[in-house]
Amino acid sequence: MLGELALIGRDPTTGGYVRDAWSAADLGLREWFAGEARRRGLDLREDRNGNLWAWWGDPSRQPGVVTGSHLDSVRQGGAYDGPLGVVSAFQALDVLRSRGVTPARPLGIACFTDEEGARFGVPCMGSRLMTGLLDPDRARGLRDDAGDSLADVLAGAGRDPHALGADPETRAHVGVFVELHVEQGRALADLDAPVGVAAAIWPHGRWRFDFRGQANHAGTTLLADRDDPMLAYAAAVLAAREAAVRHGVVATFGKVRVSPNNANAIPGLVSAWLDARGAGEKEVRALVEELTDLVNLPRSGTVAPTVGGPPPGDSAADGPVAPSRAVEVREESWTPVVDFEVALRDRVATAAARSTGGPVPVLPTGAGHDAGILASAGVPSAMLFVRNPTGVSHSPEEHAEETDCAAGVRALAEVLEELCR
Amino acid sequence: MLGELALIGRDPTTGGYVRDAWSAADLGLREWFAGEARRRGLDLREDRNGNLWAWWGDPSRQPGVVTGSHLDSVRQGGAYDGPLGVVSAFQALDVLRSRGVTPARPLGIACFTDEEGARFGVPCMGSRLMTGLLDPDRARGLRDDAGDSLADVLAGAGRDPHALGADPETRAHVGVFVELHVEQGRALADLDAPVGVAAAIWPHGRWRFDFRGQANHAGTTLLADRDDPMLAYAAAVLAAREAAVRHGVVATFGKVRVSPNNANAIPGLVSAWLDARGAGEKEVRALVEELTDLVNLPRSGTVAPTVGGPPPGDSAADGPVAPSRAVEVREESWTPVVDFEVALRDRVATAAARSTGGPVPVLPTGAGHDAGILASAGVPSAMLFVRNPTGVSHSPEEHAEETDCAAGVRALAEVLEELCR
Repeated sequence: MLGELALIGRDPTTGGYVRDAWSAADLGLREWFAGEARRRGLDLREDRNGNLWAWWGDPSRQPGVVTGSHLDSVRQGGAYDGPLGVVSAFQALDVLRSRGVTPARPLGIACFTDEEGARFGVPCMGSRLMTGLLDPDRARGLRDDAGDSLADVLAGAGRDPHALGADPETRAHVGVFVELHVEQGRALADLDAPVGVAAAIWPHGRWRFDFRGQANHAGTTLLADRDDPMLAYAAAVLAAREAAVRHGVVATFGKVRVSPNNANAIPGLVSAWLDARGAGEKEVRALVEELTDLVNLPRSGTVAPTVGGPPPGDSAADGPVAPSRAVEVREESWTPVVDFEVALRDRVATAAARSTGGPVPVLPTGAGHDAGILASAGVPSAMLFVRNPTGVSHSPEEHAEETDCAAGVRALAEVLEELCR
Repeated sequence: MLGELALIGRDPTTGGYVRDAWSAADLGLREWFAGEARRRGLDLREDRNGNLWAWWGDPSRQPGVVTGSHLDSVRQGGAYDGPLGVVSAFQALDVLRSRGVTPARPLGIACFTDEEGARFGVPCMGSRLMTGLLDPDRARGLRDDAGDSLADVLAGAGRDPHALGADPETRAHVGVFVELHVEQGRALADLDAPVGVAAAIWPHGRWRFDFRGQANHAGTTLLADRDDPMLAYAAAVLAAREAAVRHGVVATFGKVRVSPNNANAIPGLVSAWLDARGAGEKEVRALVEELTDLVNLPRSGTVAPTVGGPPPGDSAADGPVAPSRAVEVREESWTPVVDFEVALRDRVATAAARSTGGPVPVLPTGAGHDAGILASAGVPSAMLFVRNPTGVSHSPEEHAEETDCAAGVRALAEVLEELCR
């Protein structure tokens, strides 16, 4: 089934996927979801936030057992992150039917909107809106790189932007949620297990740094006359890595926007996004605070200042010190630690182990997921991970073996049967 | 007259100009040029490389005196860089006519195509092609950010891409070339002079650095497992500045392209463009060589290595060392030093001084110009600079006072009258 999706939103030059929310690719994926639901006689619904639901049984009579994931991708992402959970959900339902199981509770398959946040910058948009964790006014005003607001994009896709917002009715249909996902690290490969369950999702956040300088000619502006924000950005990249090592967390500058981005012009503005995560909220917060302090120290041209070290500009090797301008640091998202319910987790792990015949490791993860958002909002939630032999994710090289994907489907079917009892 | 151009290609949100070669804005500017030529009864020609020529007199009878500049801009550039030279050319011709001067030689006004190289990466495209300094096959194959080749773009604009190439006939029409340009530094402001002449154009070049790593998930990939090319790029930015200070040259990373450029993904590729220039070719070359060596040393995560220092990775503070991948460094353009002819320069300076009534300083410059290309190709060439009070250029803040622009026109008229004798 994953193969049927293989050509939707695929960049033929890289093999990576570009499946922005509400793009033509995303609309095609939604069509595919609707077709799979219809083929199985499921009741298809799109909620006010654009999340898709395919029901076997009526969730308005009693809260159901829901599984699923998302179909959008990061830009140049892999084939598995998201789609594996949705495809496995349909396949697990097929397994239950082929075994003649009639679930005692309604069984739902969910596809959440814009999990990656690739287009509007806020991940898990659909689940955040549904649970009331994201203000719909803020969501409507978010803009993509082309300058289009989410409100305009929704209207263009035939959706009502005013409908966005907390949706307690839809949420009440979800008695329990289990998300299956390709692992985004190598823990299962190292433990030689095809399937694992999630212990916790690390606290994580995204911050935008605006480094401002003076756009000027790259050939005629003397070094002493420059205020080049690229130097401050470069120092921040190296300082973030140093601080991440010291605090035992991860920190990444993976997105940069330079203006005017001419080879022969000193930039006027470098905007860069910091992604920081770790087991401890305190350590992640400390890194961001130190970095914010650091980038607002007077600028030095040539030496990467180290967090906690002496302020730059003291060394004679520094060269000219450019005038300093405030660096604006804005938090774009923050998700506290999510500890999945231990009792549910153990029940899921035990059921999964019945199908794999081996132990099912319990793993913490640095990735955010809709299951984490639902758990934060009080919905009992759990996650299953499928082994990723290289650990590579958010890349065209992301991979899972077919036998492991099949083991994931069997484990998910076992878990759903258990939870529907 | 500059005011008539003010709205063509202007970004209303920044006030900066975006006038890529062969864009709608550029075609509009060409229309404007043609209109000005027609209004004055000049003979308008477009040569096989897209350069525009407006002639007073017939240059096929004897080589003419030519002035002019370009109308395209860097992205988010200012109003003066290029257009001031073209507008001043028409105005200087008007001055000569109002004085009843009938030049003894043909007088031409030139507008060169794609001087900035903003779209296809090669500056002075029109003058390089005309003089045979750029291979037309290479030019046709250059691609813009949208992936369109120059050949396709030319065909789309109704031009014949096969016509590109050395044009000795057009070149033979140019007996002498004088380009007026806004100064792109503050030398004239410091010397309190409205107008100056060029001594030499610094040798300068552009190099593309491709830093390759492993695209991966920003949350789930341990620091030790990362191969993040952004770290190598950041170290290169700081090292380039340090080396520029040491060698007494200027070096700038002003353009960066990150792939996939997702906030939650470690990049797989960071491409960055180095612009380096200086009075001495040896020093510029040394900087580029040192930087090329440096980026190909084994990578270290946290410390910016310094050129000439010990290889990184020796310090215990370095943290994990990511696997090293070769960084590809390609020279995209190189222009040797241009020393303008001293006899012509002195004649131009003397004529200009007659109009300003004060001394006309002789300035070196770090900026490339079509006059420099023509000089390299053996055409006697000179440049006049008009004072820029802040020195800012390649920025919406670029400026010249009206009185200085008028002084530039008077000086240019005087120079043309002198050269037409």
